[in-house]
Amino acid sequence: MAQKPGIPKGTRDFSPEEVAKRQYIMSIMKANFEKFGYQPIETPSFENSETLMGKYGEEGDRLIFKILNSGDYLSKADENHLANRDSLRLTSSISEKALRYDLTVPFARYVVQHQNDIQFPFKRYQIQPVWRADRPQKGRFREFYQCDADVVGSNSLWQEVELVQLYDSVFADLGLDGATIKINNRKILSGIAETIGAKDKLIDFTVALDKLDKIGEEGVRNEMIEKGISAEAIEKVQPLFSFTGNVDEKLEKLSALLSASEEGKKGIEELKFICDNVKALGLKGATLDLDVTLARGLNYYTGAIFEVVAPKVAMGSIGGGGRYDDLTGIFGLKNISGVGISFGLDRIYLVLEELGLFPETVTSAPIALFLNLGEGEALFSMKAVSELRNSGIRVDMYPDKSKTDKQFKYAEKRNIPFVVTVGEQELIDGNYSVKNLVSAQKWTVSFNDLKELLSDNF
Amino acid sequence: MAQKPGIPKGTRDFSPEEVAKRQYIMSIMKANFEKFGYQPIETPSFENSETLMGKYGEEGDRLIFKILNSGDYLSKADENHLANRDSLRLTSSISEKALRYDLTVPFARYVVQHQNDIQFPFKRYQIQPVWRADRPQKGRFREFYQCDADVVGSNSLWQEVELVQLYDSVFADLGLDGATIKINNRKILSGIAETIGAKDKLIDFTVALDKLDKIGEEGVRNEMIEKGISAEAIEKVQPLFSFTGNVDEKLEKLSALLSASEEGKKGIEELKFICDNVKALGLKGATLDLDVTLARGLNYYTGAIFEVVAPKVAMGSIGGGGRYDDLTGIFGLKNISGVGISFGLDRIYLVLEELGLFPETVTSAPIALFLNLGEGEALFSMKAVSELRNSGIRVDMYPDKSKTDKQFKYAEKRNIPFVVTVGEQELIDGNYSVKNLVSAQKWTVSFNDLKELLSDNF
Repeated sequence: MAQKPGIPKGTRDFSPEEVAKRQYIMSIMKANFEKFGYQPIETPSFENSETLMGKYGEEGDRLIFKILNSGDYLSKADENHLANRDSLRLTSSISEKALRYDLTVPFARYVVQHQNDIQFPFKRYQIQPVWRADRPQKGRFREFYQCDADVVGSNSLWQEVELVQLYDSVFADLGLDGATIKINNRKILSGIAETIGAKDKLIDFTVALDKLDKIGEEGVRNEMIEKGISAEAIEKVQPLFSFTGNVDEKLEKLSALLSASEEGKKGIEELKFICDNVKALGLKGATLDLDVTLARGLNYYTGAIFEVVAPKVAMGSIGGGGRYDDLTGIFGLKNISGVGISFGLDRIYLVLEELGLFPETVTSAPIALFLNLGEGEALFSMKAVSELRNSGIRVDMYPDKSKTDKQFKYAEKRNIPFVVTVGEQELIDGNYSVKNLVSAQKWTVSFNDLKELLSDNF
Repeated sequence: MAQKPGIPKGTRDFSPEEVAKRQYIMSIMKANFEKFGYQPIETPSFENSETLMGKYGEEGDRLIFKILNSGDYLSKADENHLANRDSLRLTSSISEKALRYDLTVPFARYVVQHQNDIQFPFKRYQIQPVWRADRPQKGRFREFYQCDADVVGSNSLWQEVELVQLYDSVFADLGLDGATIKINNRKILSGIAETIGAKDKLIDFTVALDKLDKIGEEGVRNEMIEKGISAEAIEKVQPLFSFTGNVDEKLEKLSALLSASEEGKKGIEELKFICDNVKALGLKGATLDLDVTLARGLNYYTGAIFEVVAPKVAMGSIGGGGRYDDLTGIFGLKNISGVGISFGLDRIYLVLEELGLFPETVTSAPIALFLNLGEGEALFSMKAVSELRNSGIRVDMYPDKSKTDKQFKYAEKRNIPFVVTVGEQELIDGNYSVKNLVSAQKWTVSFNDLKELLSDNF
């Protein structure tokens, strides 16, 4: 026998059960995206390399999967780089296409390319796989889905309000109560940097401050000083070390702290608008919290910054996003502000699994298996099967006239709860013997009663 | 301004309208696949090259997109092939992965890899993109979706019966009445080859016979003789030149014609079982027809062969499939018979478009746009917007306080039928002014009436 085949590291096969659960999450996202006015687009799996390269930094470039040109690709290969065995520089002469690394750059490309057909503000969502040549490790894959909702072409902060609601609404529909939607604003971070007089130390500052719970105030101060932040600077932002209370209280503390920074004050104003209106509209199950240490994608975001933390399980962030002021600038379309959020499908899956939140109805398995006891019996069964299917009920018939025992085992192993038998007697009487494999209950019923029984349990 | 960006030839961006229409088709397929007991799997976009190479013939190998190894790929490049500038032979030393070319080989790989977790017969469906480095042309793309349903692990002909029903059921749900499901059997083709005493001429024979309608009996005969089929051989299968009537009549003619061929008789018997039972169970809108010229994938199929032709429009086949007796043998798991069908998503899309069969409700666009006339008005509107969204109704608010005119135009261009205005007066009265942009009708209503109005039109 040949060696058992495998799949490339960092990729996954999904079983019927896994596909059903993933589709359940995605269908809830889609329904909410659309309720909130976002419309779907899809872009090709591979883009021209020039569209992707240089957009994610040097490390990003390295992690992009390149597609080898078709045919006699060496005929166009750069001879110098080939002679020097310079893999890095040779690539562009033997590869013109690359697999999508995220959905954001293709979205920017889409907006610029189709700008004449698009109505701005343009609200789009996109749920598609992306590929990264990352070192595979637990929970990190080389192929994974991103689920993004973005709106471009408006500066209105109502969009940030709506995105908080969108997170809340998706989690509510998933039954995931108690998620924390953390919010910050790039302008507040700039205000803090101004206040401590050290713009280049901002990341060091927020990283250290974020450890307050773990290493205590003394530890944080030591780390900051190690990183070259002066003791006086730390003194100036002392209130951040006891930054507790509700959002209003935190905003008040920030107002006092950043009163000298125009940008900081603007950031507070923006945050206040968002938080006030979210409060006025109410959330279903999530909590909005201000976190001044939140700095993800700092070089990218220009206004609001979001990150979502799941309740009860230690999982890292299950979503994130923010406002960026010039996304499409990289493709020549200036002054288009955008804001968007992303849902982490794989992590949300793990959270729902761990908390037992997948409904039992999330399955694609049939509710009943008809046994096959011979050609005449099978035809009689298939008539019922067809009619049940026409009513939208998932049922199946065992295709072969195998031993009854084997057919029962098949139903069990496929987790099909009901087995329907049509044998000689049933054929004469025109009825069906049904067994519930879970409760071991048995019935002999007419077709209409069979249909009702299965519908009730479907 | 930078050059407007583009996408690789043979690939497509899909607009919101196109995505909604494609999802509509796919959701009908999925619902039917599951009603018929098929369960979804998903496999990675790229496979190890050895999984794919050599499975589709030389031409297929050439059309597979190869992924360049990450990092310093030249360090492992074969020096001889490099020195000879032998692109073809070099590939395997600088590329270990390749994009999926179809869903069948990955499915076979999946079955063998997971054979211990699978219950046979295993009914799976798979809807995923595949990639081919084909020359792009009208209707042929380098990235396109395949939609396959297969069952492996049983020889039962009930599965063929069911697959005919599945085609019929999908087309019925799509409103596409009058599709022709053509059926043939590899064994009948073998019987014909035996009868004309020229196995190697079988394809030439069927290709010529298929032209009967176009070039007439004389033309077909001439073409056959040109291809080296003897006049006596042609005489022996004379009945195929007037091969009309219903399926039963055709089967009778075949019985007489192939009475000397054991394999031919077996093929007739199989076809008879399938056609008799399909007839007994009935079809909703499609017609099953026997077509002895049907020979697609001849080297692949071992039993039934299917092909579907759309009604009213010239589109080529919109689906096809058949039985294959040793799919998983290529990965070392012998004696697993399978049968499956495929739906041509792109062509079905074009057929539905041409026949105007997409329901108007197939859209992801909001039903109503709330205007933004100021902060207080917007908050009042957003409360209504949130409650409508909670009821599952897609609505949107214009994010900026722009000129009313501009906001109305935005609704028009996005094809949003209702515009809701909350101005000073509405804010005082606590109600909503609604305009239907299509009929120009206007109402001033309470929230409950607004909700009812929008629900009724949703």
